[in-house]
Amino acid sequence: MGGNSGIQGLEPLNRASEVEHLIDAVKALIVPFIREADEAAPSRATGQLAVNEKGVARNVLVESLKPEELVKQLALSLPKAEGRGEEGLLQTIQDILQHSVNTWDQGFLDKLYASTNAVGVVTELLLAVLNTNLHVYQVSPALSAIEKHTANALANVFGFTGPRAGGVTCPGGSGSNLSSIVIARNTLYPETKTAGNFCASGPFVLFTSAHGHYSVEKAAITCGFGSTSVWTVPVDSSGCMDPSELRALVGRAKAEGKTPLYVNATAGTTVLGSYDPFEAISAICREHNLWMHIDASWGGPAIFSAQHRHKLAGSHLANSLTVNPHKMMNVPVTCSFLLGPDMAVFHRANTLPAGYLFHAPADDSEVWDLADLTLQCGRRGDSLKLALSWIYYGAAGFERQIDGGFAIAAYMADILAERDDFVLVSANPPPCLQVCFYYAPGGKIADAPEENTRRTREMVAKLVRRGFMIDYAPGEAGSFFRVVVNCQTLRGTVDGLVKALESVGREVVE
Amino acid sequence: MGGNSGIQGLEPLNRASEVEHLIDAVKALIVPFIREADEAAPSRATGQLAVNEKGVARNVLVESLKPEELVKQLALSLPKAEGRGEEGLLQTIQDILQHSVNTWDQGFLDKLYASTNAVGVVTELLLAVLNTNLHVYQVSPALSAIEKHTANALANVFGFTGPRAGGVTCPGGSGSNLSSIVIARNTLYPETKTAGNFCASGPFVLFTSAHGHYSVEKAAITCGFGSTSVWTVPVDSSGCMDPSELRALVGRAKAEGKTPLYVNATAGTTVLGSYDPFEAISAICREHNLWMHIDASWGGPAIFSAQHRHKLAGSHLANSLTVNPHKMMNVPVTCSFLLGPDMAVFHRANTLPAGYLFHAPADDSEVWDLADLTLQCGRRGDSLKLALSWIYYGAAGFERQIDGGFAIAAYMADILAERDDFVLVSANPPPCLQVCFYYAPGGKIADAPEENTRRTREMVAKLVRRGFMIDYAPGEAGSFFRVVVNCQTLRGTVDGLVKALESVGREVVE
Repeated sequence: MGGNSGIQGLEPLNRASEVEHLIDAVKALIVPFIREADEAAPSRATGQLAVNEKGVARNVLVESLKPEELVKQLALSLPKAEGRGEEGLLQTIQDILQHSVNTWDQGFLDKLYASTNAVGVVTELLLAVLNTNLHVYQVSPALSAIEKHTANALANVFGFTGPRAGGVTCPGGSGSNLSSIVIARNTLYPETKTAGNFCASGPFVLFTSAHGHYSVEKAAITCGFGSTSVWTVPVDSSGCMDPSELRALVGRAKAEGKTPLYVNATAGTTVLGSYDPFEAISAICREHNLWMHIDASWGGPAIFSAQHRHKLAGSHLANSLTVNPHKMMNVPVTCSFLLGPDMAVFHRANTLPAGYLFHAPADDSEVWDLADLTLQCGRRGDSLKLALSWIYYGAAGFERQIDGGFAIAAYMADILAERDDFVLVSANPPPCLQVCFYYAPGGKIADAPEENTRRTREMVAKLVRRGFMIDYAPGEAGSFFRVVVNCQTLRGTVDGLVKALESVGREVVE
Repeated sequence: MGGNSGIQGLEPLNRASEVEHLIDAVKALIVPFIREADEAAPSRATGQLAVNEKGVARNVLVESLKPEELVKQLALSLPKAEGRGEEGLLQTIQDILQHSVNTWDQGFLDKLYASTNAVGVVTELLLAVLNTNLHVYQVSPALSAIEKHTANALANVFGFTGPRAGGVTCPGGSGSNLSSIVIARNTLYPETKTAGNFCASGPFVLFTSAHGHYSVEKAAITCGFGSTSVWTVPVDSSGCMDPSELRALVGRAKAEGKTPLYVNATAGTTVLGSYDPFEAISAICREHNLWMHIDASWGGPAIFSAQHRHKLAGSHLANSLTVNPHKMMNVPVTCSFLLGPDMAVFHRANTLPAGYLFHAPADDSEVWDLADLTLQCGRRGDSLKLALSWIYYGAAGFERQIDGGFAIAAYMADILAERDDFVLVSANPPPCLQVCFYYAPGGKIADAPEENTRRTREMVAKLVRRGFMIDYAPGEAGSFFRVVVNCQTLRGTVDGLVKALESVGREVVE
């Protein structure tokens, strides 16, 4: 019967005690999971796995298994008849924790996010209990007010300071970028909202940096422009979009009878972390009536740092901007904002009548039923995650965290630059939190790209077994390493990783 | 300094204790929030607010405020310098709880979801701690395996039983429906993936029930078809799509030189909860090579009930199907699956090369990097919410919950049918969990639609002050009530709501 309490007909209800009881039971499993990562941290400087009191080296980060092996070990079973109640639930949670990557571990340096923090954890707990939907104000008054306030505050930080500046959350950076393209098209060519993609001056073209994220191409396909509508703009040696190349491509598109629509500039590219020159790009967009979007999903939070915000100079000139606090700011996945100077534009582009949901057609300038600004109907209160983190840490706390992350990236680049066995791909200091490099024993990378790719991949696999998870990306001379530090990365971790790299490097060239 | 522990340079790390401490502090706020709703439940049968030991009637459901008043009372402030640490965090959480709709309250009967349950709460807690991303298997092995397993099991329940059957989660029903249209177009007209919306036989047309959800129109705009590409198919008297009308419209579209692409059939429409005739629709789709999608966002879970699954007869004939366990199944918002008979089709339609993310171009039939099946890059592990609920309650528990919800809807319809002062719009029993009706003193609705709309709106507003939140929708005779019961609704709640309706009804016609 354990699996059926709190439902039909059991009066008085006692869901409160049930929730309290299960939170305690799950807390007893998750706190040790985090503690393991805490306790493994000091030993990271050795470049080896920590050894426990029994002398056993345990890989806190991940127990790496191939999918087929994992499926066997998890032995997941969804009961066709009666449920397994609390015992089955807690057993499954234990299994999941054992077979998951521990993102709290210092060795997790693989992706553009890491663990959240205590504030993030309790915010998700609160969102679960509220279990509401930010489509209309009626059912989510406090969270709707918080979304508007937080998006406005964040828009202000990026320099959108007009009376209708603000933003909305979308389900991720890809969702924000897709929304920006839809808003751009529906705004610049409003007849497309009813009649579809058609412009008398020819098919639309979107421009993005050669180093931009693939979500722009995915969005172009979704929008019915097709992947060939995305023209990639060459970058300079540091991975920044070359404005003169952009200007030339816009001219060529027009000469070919096409309609340039949208430029996606990037603040913090996925591989190198480079920032495009926004002021120069904006000038071209204004000259040709193009929508300027900034994908600051990753690099945007640098705006909170007096030391680094110059990289975002010109952000206020954009028509829209994506920023994902769930990446650099340790807010739980997912939290992505699409910001802009004028929410009336978002509203006009996206509003649709749905009399059963939206009862009070809103004035453009003050929409409270937030779904009407977006591509979604039901929406989770993701903005709360940034709001509560902001209240807890303050903008000053964010600045210290972000400065700390950038300093760690510079520290790692310095070490690699000093050593004989690495060649940096990143600038030194790197523009963002990625440190990219080749393994190059004696200062020399292999002549054959395939050999560098082989070395990189094999070293990455060996590093996982030492508790370091780092990624790699394709380059002209073969795949190179991409290490992503975060605001919680310690110097000792970087020291240990470099030692481990040197050690596994020797193994793959022997 | 409270706002900065656990970040840079504090060794040894002690995030585990910080998480434990904050969970306890927040638990002390959320458990009483749920308990209030538990304790208010028995008094619901009176149709009045519960009175506490001091004789004060407190509205547990909501403290209804206009946005401007709420903003003033919340007095939200995001610190420009130092954060407010734990004290500011907990104070804000208290304020949010006070100003939010309590979806655990029996009086919340307004939308196609209600509160979650204890399993839902701890699942969100676990997801927060794991804080990972289901784009690639490497960083989310256990959760990726669980998504595949759960989607496959759910697809099986709907009759997709082939070797490549399965599904993915999307960020909501709108997201799933949008994804289905993109997959339909990219599959039936694969050249559109590169070249955009163009078909030699003319512009695409989508068909949906006149009672279908507005997300299909929103998706059509997003996809660059424009809103006029969506042709609404007339419904019969019980709100079900009329297949002969569909057949006629497909013929007309072809005669006009257009390309019929996609039919959206609905299982549980938003207002009446009606189920379209899937077998008849499928026959037309096969005859004309149209993609058949079922939007079972709301009504899909009836598939778990031996008593009600006949409403979904023919679901296995669809090319894709959306179902949102976050609606009827009390799984936390958001959890939406897009299911289908062949995941290789999803993959071919959505895959894109991104060498920095997807390292192992997957075989079509066994994709483990799940983002490559979707429109997204970063993805939250929403499938875990259904998986853990399934393990806890079992399919048998789901069936009891769903049968209970349907029985309560029938109970309410019976009561209304017996009374003199209401006219049912819903069939009796209703097809799903909505009970729709007009207030009709003496069995007669007002002649003027505006008068019925006025009565309905005023009664709805008065009911909120008695602790019942119900919704309304436009109809030919003006707006009518839409009450959405859920699997946790008690009979006493329905009794009390009917009393309250009678009481506020007398007030608005005096």
